[in-house]
Formats: sequence, structure tokens, C-alpha cells
Amino acid sequence: MTSPKLYDFPESGNSYKVRLLINLLNLPVDIEKMDALAGACRTEDFKKKNVDQRLPLLELPDGTRIAESNAILHYLARGSDLASDDPVDEAQILRWMFFEQNQIESKVAEVRFIYHYVPIEKQNKPFLEELANRANRALQVMDDHLEKNDFFACNRFTIADIALYAYTHVAGEAGFELSHFPNIQTWIKRVEERERFIPFTER
Amino acid sequence: MTSPKLYDFPESGNSYKVRLLINLLNLPVDIEKMDALAGACRTEDFKKKNVDQRLPLLELPDGTRIAESNAILHYLARGSDLASDDPVDEAQILRWMFFEQNQIESKVAEVRFIYHYVPIEKQNKPFLEELANRANRALQVMDDHLEKNDFFACNRFTIADIALYAYTHVAGEAGFELSHFPNIQTWIKRVEERERFIPFTER
Repeated sequence: MTSPKLYDFPESGNSYKVRLLINLLNLPVDIEKMDALAGACRTEDFKKKNVDQRLPLLELPDGTRIAESNAILHYLARGSDLASDDPVDEAQILRWMFFEQNQIESKVAEVRFIYHYVPIEKQNKPFLEELANRANRALQVMDDHLEKNDFFACNRFTIADIALYAYTHVAGEAGFELSHFPNIQTWIKRVEERERFIPFTER
Repeated sequence: MTSPKLYDFPESGNSYKVRLLINLLNLPVDIEKMDALAGACRTEDFKKKNVDQRLPLLELPDGTRIAESNAILHYLARGSDLASDDPVDEAQILRWMFFEQNQIESKVAEVRFIYHYVPIEKQNKPFLEELANRANRALQVMDDHLEKNDFFACNRFTIADIALYAYTHVAGEAGFELSHFPNIQTWIKRVEERERFIPFTER
């Protein structure tokens, strides 16, 4: 193996982030699709690759493995204009990537997963409602930031935008009203106009 | 102002992370305590400092501000032996810091906050139970990792350990049974034995 390999779950927004970055930067990465819903990660073999048994996972040619979508983005974007070597600029990029994992992924993605994959009679409604309230607050923070900024960090398109785009642009699928967040809607269009952009559905 | 200033909410584990790092590295940072529970961040003035109106927040001498505890840790630890310049090592550190925000902070810290500050008759029980199930799974992942590792990344104590320690060591306050996770318990002791360690309660 001479290229890194991405273990990819095509229906996951976290996996999509990495595929989008790979395409935007035209990186030589092999992609192996796995069906996480069918339990492909829940094996002892895969646990040896990633103790957290989640996707995406990046495997380097020397066998080293990097888990967590945003850590993979940070690693693969190094040296490109989607990242930064400047300490303060890098901190601003990471700031929004941590916000994404804490405020968007853990809430919007969770609600979306339950909507898509859990039968309605088995859905925990009070859990869904409480998560949705918190997610709406986070979407408002993003909208407020975008009132005065075209992108999240460094006045340009970076991996922070890729991280936040992944689950935000499909929030409607989880019952969120993106029409309440006009600045987010404009930013979504801005992201989708990037050269070499690929949609989530291109799997 | 010649030193950075930390806007600190003493009761927050996210703020404690930064205070712990500052003490471990003996960094010249001024600390301004704020009472987030009394609404000190919910002002229009503070929103200009941080659109997310959360703490901690680091303000640099030139007025630049860095939000999100783990982005602040990454910024302040740069060049020290608690961080790494090596791309793969840095990715492993960030991997666990993203895991922390996604799997521990957004679940253990949330449950702990509700236990501490929300009257029992107003607590949303199905929400608490669902979050606790997810948090227990994440604690098991940490315990599994620590079965073969003394620390989370790079075979040494790093900011990944600081990030994960903050809410994990007080998980008992949120009703979690740390006795089910013996490797976590040993690791907690290992963290607390560091030179210049300060406890959460030292505010």
C-alpha cells in the first residue's frame, strides 16, 4: 500500500467530510466502503484498528491509523490553503471544528440518525426534543457568526467550513427549519460553489 | 495588557482544563473569573467577544480571542512537551480531543450539569438516561484504550489527557460508576501525580 486508505461509511456525514476534502484537494487516498449499519465495525478485528469502532478511519501506508473525522481533516489538509500554519489562525479553525463536534455533530447528527434509522414507535421523543432545542441554539450561533463573516475562520474557506457543512446542510432531514437561518443558507450555497465540490449523495 | 487573559468560569470543567494547563506549564496568563450561571456571558457586550457566549475564552494582548477549551489548550501548549509538532502525533492528540468534545463533554458534562443545577422535579429523565447510556459506552472506549496505554496519545502525558481528565474524573458526581472502569481509575491517579497538578476544586 502506497497511498493512505480511508475506511468510509458512505451514509455518514463524518465520512463525507473526509471524502469532500479528498476531492477538493485531489488527494491520492484509497477508499474502502464499509456498512456500519450492518455491523462491519463491530468486529474484534476492526476494534484492533480503532478501539472506538467508528468510521471514518484513515490508515497510513506504515499502518498508523487516525480516527475522528476532524483529526483526519486536520492531518490531510496540512500545508494546503484549507488549513493554516499560523498559530492563531489554526486556533480559529480548530475552535469551530471543536464547536462542530460538541454542538452540531453530537446533536444534529444524532437527531438525524434517529429520524432515518430508528422506527418511529421506538424513538425516545423527550430525548429528541431536548437535543433539538440545543441544536437550534447552536445553529443560531452559526447564523449570528455568518452575519458578519463569509466563512467560519481566517476570512476564507477552510476545513472548519467542511466540518460544519457536513451535518448542517442536511439538518432539514432531521426536522430543523433552515429557513430560520438565512445566513447559514447563503453560506451553504457558498460552500457548494467551490471548485471540485461533491455532494453528500455522491458516494 | 501584556499577558493573555483567560475568561474563566470556575465551576466549568472546560475552564478547569485551561487552568490546569496554565499551572502545569507555569504560563503567564491573567485570569478573570465570571459567573456564567448568573448570566455574566449572556450580555451583548460579551457576545461581541464570543458569539457563542460560552466560557472559557482566551483574549490575546492584541485583542484576538480564542474560544473552545480544546482550541485554547492546543494554542497554549504549542512548543511544549504536552503537544507535538509531528503531523501524526498531533493527529493522535487531536483525535482524542475531538472524541472528548463529542463523546464525553457533550454527554458526561451535560448529565453532571443537570444533576447539579436543575431541580430534580424539572429534570428530563428520558433525556438523562439516553445521554448516560451513550456516555457509558464512551467511558468503556476510554477504558479499553487504557488497557494497553498509560496515556491517550504519543505514549506520554499530553493535552489529550488534560482534555479527557476534566469531566471524566468527576463523572461520579453525575451518577456514573467509575468502579466499572478500572483502567480509567488508574489513569486518573497517574494524571493527579503530575508535578504542578492542581485539582478542579482549586479555584
